[in-house]
Amino acid sequence: MKPPAGFRAAAVACGLKPSGRPDLGLIVADAPAVAAGVVTANRVRAAPVTLTRRHLRRGTARAVVVNAGNANACTGRRGLDDARAMAKLAATAAGARERDVLVASTGIIGRHLDMGKVASGIDAAAARLSPDGLEEVARAIMTTDTTVKSAEAPAGPGRVVGIAKGAGMIAPEMATMLAFVLTDLPLSRSVLAGALAGAQRETFGMISVDGCISTNDCVLALASGAAGGAEIGPGDPLAEAFGDALREVCGSLALQMVEDGEGATKVVTIRVRSAANEREARRAARALADSLLLRCAVHGADPNWGRAVAALGASGIPLDPNRIDVSIGGERVCERGTIGPGDLGRARAAMAGREVEIVVELNRGAASCEFLTNDLSAEYVRINSEYTT
Amino acid sequence: MKPPAGFRAAAVACGLKPSGRPDLGLIVADAPAVAAGVVTANRVRAAPVTLTRRHLRRGTARAVVVNAGNANACTGRRGLDDARAMAKLAATAAGARERDVLVASTGIIGRHLDMGKVASGIDAAAARLSPDGLEEVARAIMTTDTTVKSAEAPAGPGRVVGIAKGAGMIAPEMATMLAFVLTDLPLSRSVLAGALAGAQRETFGMISVDGCISTNDCVLALASGAAGGAEIGPGDPLAEAFGDALREVCGSLALQMVEDGEGATKVVTIRVRSAANEREARRAARALADSLLLRCAVHGADPNWGRAVAALGASGIPLDPNRIDVSIGGERVCERGTIGPGDLGRARAAMAGREVEIVVELNRGAASCEFLTNDLSAEYVRINSEYTT
Repeated sequence: MKPPAGFRAAAVACGLKPSGRPDLGLIVADAPAVAAGVVTANRVRAAPVTLTRRHLRRGTARAVVVNAGNANACTGRRGLDDARAMAKLAATAAGARERDVLVASTGIIGRHLDMGKVASGIDAAAARLSPDGLEEVARAIMTTDTTVKSAEAPAGPGRVVGIAKGAGMIAPEMATMLAFVLTDLPLSRSVLAGALAGAQRETFGMISVDGCISTNDCVLALASGAAGGAEIGPGDPLAEAFGDALREVCGSLALQMVEDGEGATKVVTIRVRSAANEREARRAARALADSLLLRCAVHGADPNWGRAVAALGASGIPLDPNRIDVSIGGERVCERGTIGPGDLGRARAAMAGREVEIVVELNRGAASCEFLTNDLSAEYVRINSEYTT
Repeated sequence: MKPPAGFRAAAVACGLKPSGRPDLGLIVADAPAVAAGVVTANRVRAAPVTLTRRHLRRGTARAVVVNAGNANACTGRRGLDDARAMAKLAATAAGARERDVLVASTGIIGRHLDMGKVASGIDAAAARLSPDGLEEVARAIMTTDTTVKSAEAPAGPGRVVGIAKGAGMIAPEMATMLAFVLTDLPLSRSVLAGALAGAQRETFGMISVDGCISTNDCVLALASGAAGGAEIGPGDPLAEAFGDALREVCGSLALQMVEDGEGATKVVTIRVRSAANEREARRAARALADSLLLRCAVHGADPNWGRAVAALGASGIPLDPNRIDVSIGGERVCERGTIGPGDLGRARAAMAGREVEIVVELNRGAASCEFLTNDLSAEYVRINSEYTT
């Protein structure tokens, strides 16, 4: 997983994770890169998120510094000072200024960072920067993730490469997920920001693990321009090619997050069709994805479609219960709000696999959406009740 | 648990529960009783709920017939015919008319009732009606409940006696919970309906087990008037005494539901204070109660207050993150949005018990509320993934 031209990266273990695994990553652009980001919708924002939003306003960045093991959230004034200190240390390492650095953190909320460890970690990472270091960073940002998440796609003369972490607190408004996407195309700021917003909405914005919205999420995109050529502005065919590649990369990362959701044993694709409008389709999909009972039924491969219908009825959508169709694994188990012709045995068999598809027809209009979630297992509870402060 | 004067009850096992346990109950008033009810807010309503709402319009009832093991929900036209047949059978047994009977069902969604079993069950129950039969009914409506739920309180010259079931799909808008409250006071319809709406809002409306809203909920209240005396109208001191007794009974039943919530090992009392208004206070409390991560932390006795703050930040309330205080077990672990002076060790020790108290100060106004929920355990997942259609 080589980064696009113009970027180097490295990661080290500086002692923030009790496990002793790598926990601090650094990505540096050889020259100022065009930058854009999308951050969590949570009103409670971690200090690094506050700082990064501020630094993103300038539209360019030279480096991203990220740590796992501590979210630096709910840490008050001192937390913001610590995030700034991280930016300053990374800036020195990259030969840039504090305002040129984007900062991200993930981990426990409500603990101050051990800045001694962070400082030595940034120094050590800076000494190891190389075009081969991006996979190290992908490993360093893992928390409860069990797999390294990365994706890449060609885009015209350049490439798009992304890395990300899940694995809990995943909801459409962004959660403890972090994703960093790099490209070497010479994109204008508006092309990069527009494509990122669109890709976020269609990929990370359409997944949920537990419906919990974190204080620390962000998706950051950097374009080095090292692939050469004139600046790619809006309307340029290459802008479209980049948008497609970005969606592909973000879509792959989003799927990897759901596949590796805490305790997940199955990926559930929820397709809502014939909604009155897109907002309604999303709301319906979200209601299914947020239903503990439905997610437990999926875990047990139980085609208990009543739980889907109950979730739709409680979603707030002005739906007509007598028009709802539900198919599981291609079997229409519910038709017009009541028992359908589909075979429950075949639906159950379809649910036994790693991938489960639930299709809902609201029969109200022409809008549709596709949403990803996973099953709720006892392992999710174990992971999140043993995660000690 | 004797019912108030003027009521008889009985329950039998008619074969709807695969376990062979009692599953059909009948409550009969000796004479037309004043009746009121509150039903689920789910747009998808089970057939018995549709029928019972219709019958409640008349303001009086002679009987309640209830079955567990099958919700008669999403069963279309045939389901409604079955609910009407249940009412008719119970009416015959009670010497009343179909429209005098309230019907309730709980259990699996999307299956047609075996009306042969139901009919023989109603006949058998009718033959056993007695003032001692109410506890049998409380047992017959149990599904995943592990305890029989009942409560009573004196009210002037009369009594208020209630029975209920939980134990999953419990949310403020009513879930698979059923509750039947009986009194012998000669209440006017408006006093009964007004007191029931108020008590519902303050008791069953302030609990959540899993945030899932069922298709079958209802709380039904019947007043026989057998305690004697003139009709109790609005403004009568006895109306107030009844209201207090009703709140006490419903409050006790609500607490019993949370204590016996599916897989629950702890009861969590969430107190939200200094909200801008009551709606905001409820929304904040609900956000905490709906957070899987917080409920997992409670299960593990982990004072991970960051999860509470993250849930508040995602609740949609226009709060100021820098004003939030959170106390767990009396320890102020979060103050003004950051690390508070409270001792985490003591907070953890407080969470080790059966009862956990989380107090949130929003510091925005003078409104407050109290909400009950429980912890999320692996057992909840087991119960709900093994519950087969």
